[in-house]
Amino acid sequence: MDIYEEALRIHELHRGKLEVRSLLRVDSRRNLSLAYSPGVARPCQEIGKDVSAAWRLTMKGRTVAVVSDGSAILGLGDLGPEASLPVMEGKAVLFKEFGGIDAIPIVIDAHDADDIVETVERIAPTFGAINLEDISAPRCFEVEERLQNLGIPVLHDDQHGTAIVSLAAVQNALKVVGKGFAESRVVIGGAGAAGRAIARLLSCHGEDDRCIPVKDIVVCDSRGAIGMHRDDLDAVKREMAEHTNRGGQTGTLKEVLKGADVFIGVSRGGLLDKDDIRSMADGAIVLAMANPEPEIHPADALAAGAAVVGTGRSDYPNQVNNVLAFPGLFRGALEVGATRFTSSMKAAAVDAIAACVPGPSAERILPAAFDRSVAFAVGRAVAEAACKDGVNRIPLPE
Amino acid sequence: MDIYEEALRIHELHRGKLEVRSLLRVDSRRNLSLAYSPGVARPCQEIGKDVSAAWRLTMKGRTVAVVSDGSAILGLGDLGPEASLPVMEGKAVLFKEFGGIDAIPIVIDAHDADDIVETVERIAPTFGAINLEDISAPRCFEVEERLQNLGIPVLHDDQHGTAIVSLAAVQNALKVVGKGFAESRVVIGGAGAAGRAIARLLSCHGEDDRCIPVKDIVVCDSRGAIGMHRDDLDAVKREMAEHTNRGGQTGTLKEVLKGADVFIGVSRGGLLDKDDIRSMADGAIVLAMANPEPEIHPADALAAGAAVVGTGRSDYPNQVNNVLAFPGLFRGALEVGATRFTSSMKAAAVDAIAACVPGPSAERILPAAFDRSVAFAVGRAVAEAACKDGVNRIPLPE
Repeated sequence: MDIYEEALRIHELHRGKLEVRSLLRVDSRRNLSLAYSPGVARPCQEIGKDVSAAWRLTMKGRTVAVVSDGSAILGLGDLGPEASLPVMEGKAVLFKEFGGIDAIPIVIDAHDADDIVETVERIAPTFGAINLEDISAPRCFEVEERLQNLGIPVLHDDQHGTAIVSLAAVQNALKVVGKGFAESRVVIGGAGAAGRAIARLLSCHGEDDRCIPVKDIVVCDSRGAIGMHRDDLDAVKREMAEHTNRGGQTGTLKEVLKGADVFIGVSRGGLLDKDDIRSMADGAIVLAMANPEPEIHPADALAAGAAVVGTGRSDYPNQVNNVLAFPGLFRGALEVGATRFTSSMKAAAVDAIAACVPGPSAERILPAAFDRSVAFAVGRAVAEAACKDGVNRIPLPE
Repeated sequence: MDIYEEALRIHELHRGKLEVRSLLRVDSRRNLSLAYSPGVARPCQEIGKDVSAAWRLTMKGRTVAVVSDGSAILGLGDLGPEASLPVMEGKAVLFKEFGGIDAIPIVIDAHDADDIVETVERIAPTFGAINLEDISAPRCFEVEERLQNLGIPVLHDDQHGTAIVSLAAVQNALKVVGKGFAESRVVIGGAGAAGRAIARLLSCHGEDDRCIPVKDIVVCDSRGAIGMHRDDLDAVKREMAEHTNRGGQTGTLKEVLKGADVFIGVSRGGLLDKDDIRSMADGAIVLAMANPEPEIHPADALAAGAAVVGTGRSDYPNQVNNVLAFPGLFRGALEVGATRFTSSMKAAAVDAIAACVPGPSAERILPAAFDRSVAFAVGRAVAEAACKDGVNRIPLPE
């Protein structure tokens, strides 16, 4: 049976993948009185007096909502909220498995950014953090931005999860080739959710306090380099133009790639050929993360002289997998009751993931997706960064 | 340690009472591919083609949202959404324990009926049914009513759970005293959420297809009998006046109680004395469900000649406890993918709960709260009624 057919049967067998369970037994009158009426009145009153007690006395402080409108489900497009439930349940499974976090899928029947924002605002008292997922660009940018003052951390993982893991990969790849971020020219193929987040973390734009400065960064969409020379840009790309491409490069992706040190692909399969890789600088780093077909096959990239190659796939070396970031990211934020994600929390996650591979090599720039120590290390680093930024409600645990 | 202090410590120890768990192991690359990417694409596509597949392939069809705005928490009043979380988690614990249902607390930062309705409508794709809880009257009536065409069953348990269990209690109590509903005059003390729901189930008003007809029913608020003679009634009570009190009774609760066969109290403690009970008809049935103090102490009611007495408390015989109704009610509805709760589903629950006590006596008109067979019997009866009413998506399981 192929994996798709088997996945279908498993989902049918269990009717999804998640269950809700009680941490208390309710097998006696006394236990019922403790878990429910009348004993429950006491924690209710405590929270009524001081809402911050909810972090201590309820599931709120360890629970993340995984929110989607189903408008950009995997690579499948807009299939509606119900159709995104299998992905959201899967994400919740990973939250629990890797981060020890209780995550709850919430799929929303609303496509307008206003309505999504308003709905998340209204249900927010239930949760300690919000993970936005599979919401199409450019709405996902507006939704995430407008929720930043909610009082709990809100993160669109398709943007930042991918950005964080890619940059951890690049950081270690640069070590392998003996370069640094500051002397590297980076080309990003794809100006969608992930492309924008990578550009922001590298260009220090929109990120309040810390970033990873590079020599130059050029983002390309299907029409080529994004820059001030273009008169066909929407608001999101115009903003990118203002904060990237300091060298004022023009032309197609292939043209811009000439002499670049790093290519980060978050676009579509088969975009590049061997000649493109040959045109890059010596010690070229190629992350070809389009799914399921990478921008260039890893074997071709290596044959054309790339020094380090990564993809989004688990069947090649150096898989850039979001699961390395989001469980630890949210774990750290929840542990100190963070009110938001700051850019230094994201940058701390980049460093922590990279540090999980002490002696990186061309075949190993990232930890394995199943390495349980990653979320722990990332969580610790993120919690520390949150406290340093003063966005924590709770002191750092010893 | 008293029960309130112990409840507080237990909530702090576990940080609430619920956890989310995975039904699948994610301990290998293959399992990750089945639970998440890429295998998950297949169930997503199935649901994208036909939304009803979500009932088979996701948690939706076995999951209930327990929704509150925190405006009427137990008897504590409006303490805000976070403060209602301990109750909602407790309710979810009972859903799982007694009904095998996965229930998720959703507390909403919105007090306006429009906003609550809109929020529930938007998050509805996630769930198979909605349990409204601890929302203050009269908004709870409007919210519930406006959500009846949502396509999944929506029920405000403070209204109907209490109504269903009380009427099951009355049904068996009438057997004990050798009377029937049709020859009985019922007085309801309290015109709030539960009082209105009891009156509707008994007066056939607002219930589409089935009810429990009685000789007459009079609802009393703090100013006495509700009827067409009153000029101080709000819209909700005016509607009650139109459909109850056929005998046109006036006067205080104490006056109206004279000669009544059944008193159902959902008001406040200490409202009645022995003389009031003595004024009732022979074989008087008294359900004094005010919490924590009943309208009259059971010993006093019995001393004054009441034939059968019940309360809302677990330390006296005949406890009227919602847990006898809601797990089976939602279980039955979910089992057949019901699109709504009909009144015959509620009436079927009344009959099924009553039938769980084959030979009722004055000390035992209801099954014990911990009797696990009740939810099963109620679920079966409710599912059958749903199919008879044609509101089911899924045929009745054999």
